[in-house]
Amino acid sequence: MSLELLQKEYEALRAKAIKLDLTRGKPAPEQLELSNELLALPGTGDFTAEGATDVRNYGGLQGLAEARKLLSSLLGAPAEQVVLANNASLSLMHDTIIFSLVKGNADSAKPWGKEEEISLLCPVPGYDRHFRICEDYGIEMIPVAMNADGPDMDEVERLVAADASIRGIWCVPKYSNPTGAVYSDAVIERLASMKTAAKDFRIFWDNAYGVHHLTDEKIEIANILERAAAHGNANRPFVFASTSKITFSGAGIGGFAASKENVAWLLARLTPRTIGPDKVNQLRHVRFLKDAAGIAALMEKHRALLAPKFAAVEEIFAAGLTGLKDVSWTKPKGGYFTSLDVPAGCAKRVVSLAKDAGVVLTPAGATHPYGKDEADRTIRIAPSFPKPEDVRAAAEAVVLCVKLACAEKEAGVLEPVGAKA
Amino acid sequence: MSLELLQKEYEALRAKAIKLDLTRGKPAPEQLELSNELLALPGTGDFTAEGATDVRNYGGLQGLAEARKLLSSLLGAPAEQVVLANNASLSLMHDTIIFSLVKGNADSAKPWGKEEEISLLCPVPGYDRHFRICEDYGIEMIPVAMNADGPDMDEVERLVAADASIRGIWCVPKYSNPTGAVYSDAVIERLASMKTAAKDFRIFWDNAYGVHHLTDEKIEIANILERAAAHGNANRPFVFASTSKITFSGAGIGGFAASKENVAWLLARLTPRTIGPDKVNQLRHVRFLKDAAGIAALMEKHRALLAPKFAAVEEIFAAGLTGLKDVSWTKPKGGYFTSLDVPAGCAKRVVSLAKDAGVVLTPAGATHPYGKDEADRTIRIAPSFPKPEDVRAAAEAVVLCVKLACAEKEAGVLEPVGAKA
Repeated sequence: MSLELLQKEYEALRAKAIKLDLTRGKPAPEQLELSNELLALPGTGDFTAEGATDVRNYGGLQGLAEARKLLSSLLGAPAEQVVLANNASLSLMHDTIIFSLVKGNADSAKPWGKEEEISLLCPVPGYDRHFRICEDYGIEMIPVAMNADGPDMDEVERLVAADASIRGIWCVPKYSNPTGAVYSDAVIERLASMKTAAKDFRIFWDNAYGVHHLTDEKIEIANILERAAAHGNANRPFVFASTSKITFSGAGIGGFAASKENVAWLLARLTPRTIGPDKVNQLRHVRFLKDAAGIAALMEKHRALLAPKFAAVEEIFAAGLTGLKDVSWTKPKGGYFTSLDVPAGCAKRVVSLAKDAGVVLTPAGATHPYGKDEADRTIRIAPSFPKPEDVRAAAEAVVLCVKLACAEKEAGVLEPVGAKA
Repeated sequence: MSLELLQKEYEALRAKAIKLDLTRGKPAPEQLELSNELLALPGTGDFTAEGATDVRNYGGLQGLAEARKLLSSLLGAPAEQVVLANNASLSLMHDTIIFSLVKGNADSAKPWGKEEEISLLCPVPGYDRHFRICEDYGIEMIPVAMNADGPDMDEVERLVAADASIRGIWCVPKYSNPTGAVYSDAVIERLASMKTAAKDFRIFWDNAYGVHHLTDEKIEIANILERAAAHGNANRPFVFASTSKITFSGAGIGGFAASKENVAWLLARLTPRTIGPDKVNQLRHVRFLKDAAGIAALMEKHRALLAPKFAAVEEIFAAGLTGLKDVSWTKPKGGYFTSLDVPAGCAKRVVSLAKDAGVVLTPAGATHPYGKDEADRTIRIAPSFPKPEDVRAAAEAVVLCVKLACAEKEAGVLEPVGAKA
């Protein structure tokens, strides 16, 4: 289609004055509805947990025993190696970082904050909130390429072996944010066994989408805690997961799993901060979810609501974008995102065009450290929240904006968008 | 009574093999019972808060508007100057300290952690968990005397004017932990107006017992935020409070109030850590407590359960300890503690005797920085948790242990207890 025709089509789209939002990986109200029982649980007579624990009162820093059992398989560790906190695993990630800065982790010679320089490896594209923590605390981010089977391990191994300032790596190992990539067993084996110059190197293993399948395949990945221990690196992984996208995003349970030594370290670090997490909410979740089978059954219902939205995006992208030069997108088998790549220099333009047409997308660059996608290629698509018909309308709009930006580039009239962040 | 007779009486007590615990300020099960409605709230159809906020989903970093209104009078600030977090105001205190260490507060020239030395004033006796945070992060604690009307302000003013390393003071202004002291208006005025060498000086105003009256008097204190602002020191106070001892100790709401600039600072600091607190629990509390009058009515029920326990301690201490040299105790009009002073060098002995007789008391020294009560005089008594008859039995046992320790001291046979911490 000619630039002129596309412009006309775009003006027609703008005239419709639609208002849609594909920015964040939020569950839709229909998904939250699935857990509404929680709103009346545990019930007025139910406040006693295992070990005669009164969940209403103080105490229980590690979290309720039965809640740790419930999330044990999600975290890939026995209950005694699980720590449950309040409503956000992001807070646990943040806290392990800030505790490392101020006190060092269980293997640190001194606090990270006392080092000349501290850096973390960031597979790219990745999760903006991981990058935000690093940026906020002045931890240098070193990007490494994210492939379909996980980070570029040749590069990772080379970097961590040579540079002791590198103290960790951010990983979303399954249905990764935003590409949907799944780490292969081989990649996990290399992460678990690689030589690191830093003795206190940590893998920040954000397994946010462990049970968040979109297909029948229900992919399982290798257990990083077991593999690291097998290679004598038991303290290397910090594993994080939550029920945020299982029950309620704002009122779930965040969890941490690691070696016994790491668990002792975290509990010692948490002791000055709190007497214990909200145990009533933990009991509420135990009563509602019951066990791993209960979680799996609930996730099937989420899938029934989510899969059609991802299918719509795939269908509309395939129909509209197939064959377009340097345009590609991922087809995730789980998780909350699709990643759309457009020709170099076009991502910001697409986001800007979409915005002017009433479709808000995650800012281009958000998937990269410091918000800087040098090639200006990657756009994160989050289709979970809007209604199905709105997902379709938004995907159609995105297709048009991509085609228009491509045509502009082709014609040499691509408007520069916010050249500097 | 002779030493010998007291020893016999003590052996008779030991023979009874009682098992009682007066260690921590935990509400009794009967008090938690008062809020059992919360266990089934907000109810399966109730998840929409003001502004069409879906409390089940992500977002709302500052906390629900109606929950901030609910706790506004408790915190002494308008709702827009309130930040609500999860279940522990202690976590908010910890976080303001660690954020100050790593980033500095809104008035800091650089992060506290980059200074040669940082210290906080600690009115003594005080709250062990405040001291624990300082100790954990290497913040020097400078003790100042705690009088019946608040800290010794001559000393406080002298210290903060002279020493820029002093960045703050811990205060429990009302029904203080552990003496029950209430800050006078004059003390609050001096705290609000005093000259501090440090520009980023903060008052950590832990108003944990703001509505926790034990008498009809229902003492109100001056508003530190208003007084500080009136003196041009609007950013000086960080105010903390929670519903931990109003509803559920483990599942309440922790809150922070401060100047607009401080609130903006805290929200910016919290942004990398979380997308928002548990809003379902905030809505649950709004539905249950409704308003300040609802809180006051509930606190009357707490008082009906707590006041007799404090009365029993007072009655038994008065009957058994009156006239004993260098023995005194406080008669709190609110809060959770009584502070018992014994002759110098006797506190550890009393705690040790009580323990051997089956009555666990808070370790002697816990009320002092680094756990070191040089005079070995102060014992914190926490009568809230045990049943009334157990409070009586424990108080009787404490009386006997104090009398025995006094007699041992008199006779020059006081056994030294753990001379070094």
